[in-house]
Amino acid sequence: AIGVSANEELMNLSADAKNWAMPTGDYANTRYSKLNQINKDNVKDLQVKWTMSTGVLRGHEGGPLVIGDVMYIHTPFPNIVYALDLKNDGKILWKYEPKQDPSVIAIMCCDTVNRGVAYGDGKIILAQADTTVTALDAKTGEVAWQAKNGQATDGSIAESSTSAPMVVKDKVIIGISGAEYGVRGHISAYNLSDGTLAWRAYSTGPDSETLIDPEKTTHLGKPVGPDSGTNTWEGEQWKTGGGTTWGWYAYDPELNLIYYGTGNPSTWNPVQRPGDNRWSMTIMARDADTGMAKWLYQMTPHDEWDYDGVNEMILVDDMDIDGQQRDVLVHFDRNGFAYTMDRANGELLVAKKYDPTVNWATEVVMDPASDQYGRPQVVAEYSTQQNGEDTNTTGVCPAALGTKDQQPATYSPKTGLFYVPTNHVCMDYEPYKVSYTAGQAYVGATVAMYPTPNSHGGMGNFIAWDAAKGEIVWSKPEQFSVWSGALATEGDVVFYGTLEGYIKAVDNEGNELYKFKTPSGIIGNINTFEHDGKQYIAVLSGVGGWAGIGLAGGLLGAEGAAAWQQAVAGENAPTEEEKSISTAGLGAVGGYAALADYTTLGGQLTVFGLPD
Amino acid sequence: AIGVSANEELMNLSADAKNWAMPTGDYANTRYSKLNQINKDNVKDLQVKWTMSTGVLRGHEGGPLVIGDVMYIHTPFPNIVYALDLKNDGKILWKYEPKQDPSVIAIMCCDTVNRGVAYGDGKIILAQADTTVTALDAKTGEVAWQAKNGQATDGSIAESSTSAPMVVKDKVIIGISGAEYGVRGHISAYNLSDGTLAWRAYSTGPDSETLIDPEKTTHLGKPVGPDSGTNTWEGEQWKTGGGTTWGWYAYDPELNLIYYGTGNPSTWNPVQRPGDNRWSMTIMARDADTGMAKWLYQMTPHDEWDYDGVNEMILVDDMDIDGQQRDVLVHFDRNGFAYTMDRANGELLVAKKYDPTVNWATEVVMDPASDQYGRPQVVAEYSTQQNGEDTNTTGVCPAALGTKDQQPATYSPKTGLFYVPTNHVCMDYEPYKVSYTAGQAYVGATVAMYPTPNSHGGMGNFIAWDAAKGEIVWSKPEQFSVWSGALATEGDVVFYGTLEGYIKAVDNEGNELYKFKTPSGIIGNINTFEHDGKQYIAVLSGVGGWAGIGLAGGLLGAEGAAAWQQAVAGENAPTEEEKSISTAGLGAVGGYAALADYTTLGGQLTVFGLPD
Ligand SMILES: O=C(O)c1cc(C(=O)O)c2c(n1)C(=O)C(=O)c1cc(C(=O)O)[nH]c1-2
Ligand SMILES: O=C(O)c1cc(C(=O)O)c2c(n1)C(=O)C(=O)c1cc(C(=O)O)[nH]c1-2
Repeated sequence: AIGVSANEELMNLSADAKNWAMPTGDYANTRYSKLNQINKDNVKDLQVKWTMSTGVLRGHEGGPLVIGDVMYIHTPFPNIVYALDLKNDGKILWKYEPKQDPSVIAIMCCDTVNRGVAYGDGKIILAQADTTVTALDAKTGEVAWQAKNGQATDGSIAESSTSAPMVVKDKVIIGISGAEYGVRGHISAYNLSDGTLAWRAYSTGPDSETLIDPEKTTHLGKPVGPDSGTNTWEGEQWKTGGGTTWGWYAYDPELNLIYYGTGNPSTWNPVQRPGDNRWSMTIMARDADTGMAKWLYQMTPHDEWDYDGVNEMILVDDMDIDGQQRDVLVHFDRNGFAYTMDRANGELLVAKKYDPTVNWATEVVMDPASDQYGRPQVVAEYSTQQNGEDTNTTGVCPAALGTKDQQPATYSPKTGLFYVPTNHVCMDYEPYKVSYTAGQAYVGATVAMYPTPNSHGGMGNFIAWDAAKGEIVWSKPEQFSVWSGALATEGDVVFYGTLEGYIKAVDNEGNELYKFKTPSGIIGNINTFEHDGKQYIAVLSGVGGWAGIGLAGGLLGAEGAAAWQQAVAGENAPTEEEKSISTAGLGAVGGYAALADYTTLGGQLTVFGLPD
Repeated sequence: AIGVSANEELMNLSADAKNWAMPTGDYANTRYSKLNQINKDNVKDLQVKWTMSTGVLRGHEGGPLVIGDVMYIHTPFPNIVYALDLKNDGKILWKYEPKQDPSVIAIMCCDTVNRGVAYGDGKIILAQADTTVTALDAKTGEVAWQAKNGQATDGSIAESSTSAPMVVKDKVIIGISGAEYGVRGHISAYNLSDGTLAWRAYSTGPDSETLIDPEKTTHLGKPVGPDSGTNTWEGEQWKTGGGTTWGWYAYDPELNLIYYGTGNPSTWNPVQRPGDNRWSMTIMARDADTGMAKWLYQMTPHDEWDYDGVNEMILVDDMDIDGQQRDVLVHFDRNGFAYTMDRANGELLVAKKYDPTVNWATEVVMDPASDQYGRPQVVAEYSTQQNGEDTNTTGVCPAALGTKDQQPATYSPKTGLFYVPTNHVCMDYEPYKVSYTAGQAYVGATVAMYPTPNSHGGMGNFIAWDAAKGEIVWSKPEQFSVWSGALATEGDVVFYGTLEGYIKAVDNEGNELYKFKTPSGIIGNINTFEHDGKQYIAVLSGVGGWAGIGLAGGLLGAEGAAAWQQAVAGENAPTEEEKSISTAGLGAVGGYAALADYTTLGGQLTVFGLPD
């Protein structure tokens, strides 16, 4: 009973455009708002209405939740949650600050980010960095229950948590991070009422642990057969094989399926782990009640570039594809291909590059008759596997952080287009042999990143995408990767943030209508809500994340970089100071070094509105 | 030659209202701007134009400097300095971050604040927390020279630095902090060209070190006589006697005198240090070239309440006092009296309470014939000396942080009024015996603060003051102390900030015209400048300082408070947890605890302007 009512309450709350009741805006991950008071004609008049520091530096991902008169915001580690009174200029109703062992910071690959808290059944659910799941009374901030989802700081497995939980019916869905430390990915459902574990599905391993039915679970329409989570691995490598689940979750209430993607196989050195490494790099559709897999699709078998498949799945109904109305899932993968799939059965409908400079593969084979069906066709020159260990494979596009990383895209049903924050970055990638030590870095590659050569010189684009045709409709170049989540609105305005700290508003054709420089680089997701009859736009600033790790992690100097190299690369650390800095932070530091000329650390909420 | 030209350049820069070329706005400390584009009619339309995080939490005092196209901002420890390009949305032209031993944090009484950098001779002068004086090339941020002004972290003397330097002719004037650690105050002049010491004047000690001429230096018109810096102390107590110089400096170019005040005598336990404790709590007028004292005036002989005399001296010409035109100095002292003095000779013209609830003294005797001339008349009930050690003297108004602390007032020549940010706080004060250990806290009193009883319930007022008559013209109550510096403008708008984080604009009559909630509590000083034909208002947010030490120093919880008590009060620390928290931070934590409901830590610049 509680489950059904919790879910109904949440669906009602999120159906009311005045609220922003889920981190993703809605179960479909569209991040589209029906509010239209702020529109393409008046958005130029937008003003800052109020602001609040979060009291925490480093990267601020996710965004505020708004439910009625209360806004909930969260911070990166130490994962403070504030409830703010919208009736009283954001006065702090309550604050929750967990006590966490700071040693978890050292096992977070890509900054100490957190992508937001979820609401359900009168509770605010926080996935703490140390993998403690905390349910707070939404009214008082008192702890309702806590559960331990992983083993962040006991030294055994370097599991950590960054993703935003999603409440589905009477459960809360939570993933895990740590594929740079050999963590074996899993997704878990906790009972919302008391925090007990309902089910857990691993990304790799025996069918009983992956919750895969060899007969009924399909891959591109065919049953996967027994032991699919172990039989493309050598020996017991699947036990430290990655496939973490640190991205976004989507839910289709009618099909009762949840959708998410799994991350890279561990290590980054492909030579060490022969095989397809299933089910890393895979889109998963699972029954929300039982966790059983309905269908799977592995986008990047045997990853050689760290193209984690965790980016969000955006669910759109009745998309016209070659004259047929399909209920689809659209996914902009790190690997540079945008996938449109039938979300009921996992049929691959479209797979096209959403940045024309993607070069590691020529195409994804779409012919069901081919033995390569659904597989990207790797270009030998850019195959770090074929070039081998201790060889620097250069000029691979995109870089490890992909044509898009976790920064979520938005979909406007009004235009039928997706608006996608993208990276425009290439890399050099040199794999080397590593051995697994529990709780330690297990990376196995040295990476350097840089703006896509022979292009516009910048490291990002904000694009509009036609997912039925698989075509870029327009592309707006940006100096740095667009690492913020975007927001499309009924007012024909699309919002996104930049790493320099600008919030930008564009019309449906990509023309810039408004920009404002917030206190720090934006890697948060832009939201909108209505209060007291007025529409507002809200965003968390706070540069960081993988792209901003140089600033956030203090890796731009020789000292910080050397310490990082020592911890992660050990004897494989580059000896020259310059290379040590440029390849620190898994290769992101060098590429984004110029960010330090534009912005500084600092977590802030900025709320925008029209003049009174 | 360099000196004269440096000074001329600075005087020209500061005479041009487009700049904000000195921390104090001008040598006279008026903080008045001739800019009037933003005025009482349009200030309601003010908008946030751009913002920037400083990347540092804790209390941000002082404010931006603006010289031409460049804005310079600074942070509390670690004392980062940024040069920002006003032509390019605040792009960072250079950043300087000194390497400082963090152990200095423990010997800063009232948060790790810094009140700003000074400009002169093409250099930006930074007084680092660790007392290193650093001169940076204003164009490149390269270090031009460094000097050591004190001994912050070598363990010998707990000297530190928080005040803003003032460039005068070819020298830079710099004070010292640490009277809560038995530091003997001094003020020093360094040569702007190379950082060599030109002169140093101690607050206590032999005439050769106080730069006092027994015959020529006067106190209320009379020569002070020999050894005035030692003969009101027992034995060698003057050596650890405080009188630090951490406030503001003013300069009269015609008289060639610099003005400043000295702080409390050490310890806070008055019973331990009989005598007037000269020249603590004293307004000083010194020759800018030689440092020799022209005149002195001790406001609070034998302080029993920690009423440091360091607040700014505001210089006004031709003030009509009883029909005579006088060139005066106006000073709002911590002790609750506002003093108007002839600044050429130190004659006392007016001394009146600027908060009617001040109760520790009845009046300052104004009759030159009286043996009490110039002395406040202490009320026995509130005399912590007379009540004695280990007795809690209750209900003293103002509290130790005074009717006003370092937060500077502003003067409008247009209205002839002073606009003064004030505290409205009382205290209980219990002195206890302490012994001096070099480098350690030397406090000797337990203090608790609270809003003035039987008043409006708030802890502050923003007032207008007539310094000729010694009268409050109007008083605007505030929930918390107004801990920011104020700004008066030709546009008939006066600005100030609040600890909750609001910037507020009032008209000359105190009517609120505009308010905006910035990301954190404001303890910075509000500035204005013009760029590209447009007037802007700029302020640093970042709650802290003494009033905000509970938030900034993490003393609101049992753990932080207990550690603070251990370090400062040792065996005299209160045993009950509640009292330990409420008396932490030298008594400020309890009084301002409710601030945590309104604001959070975080350093940010906010720049306001009118709609385009
Ligand atoms: O493999 C993992 O477990 C894992 C975790 C995370 C994370 O939890 O933030 C990131 C990544 N990988 C990753 O590959 C990546 O590009 C990335 C970017 C970010 C970010 O927040 O900016 N996190 C992560
Ligand atoms: O005696 C000293 O040396 C000393 C130093 C300082 C300082 O340097 O900030 C303060 C004080 N005292 C002090 O009494 C005081 O009220 C105070 C307030 C503040 C502030 O910045 O909020 N600093 C100081």
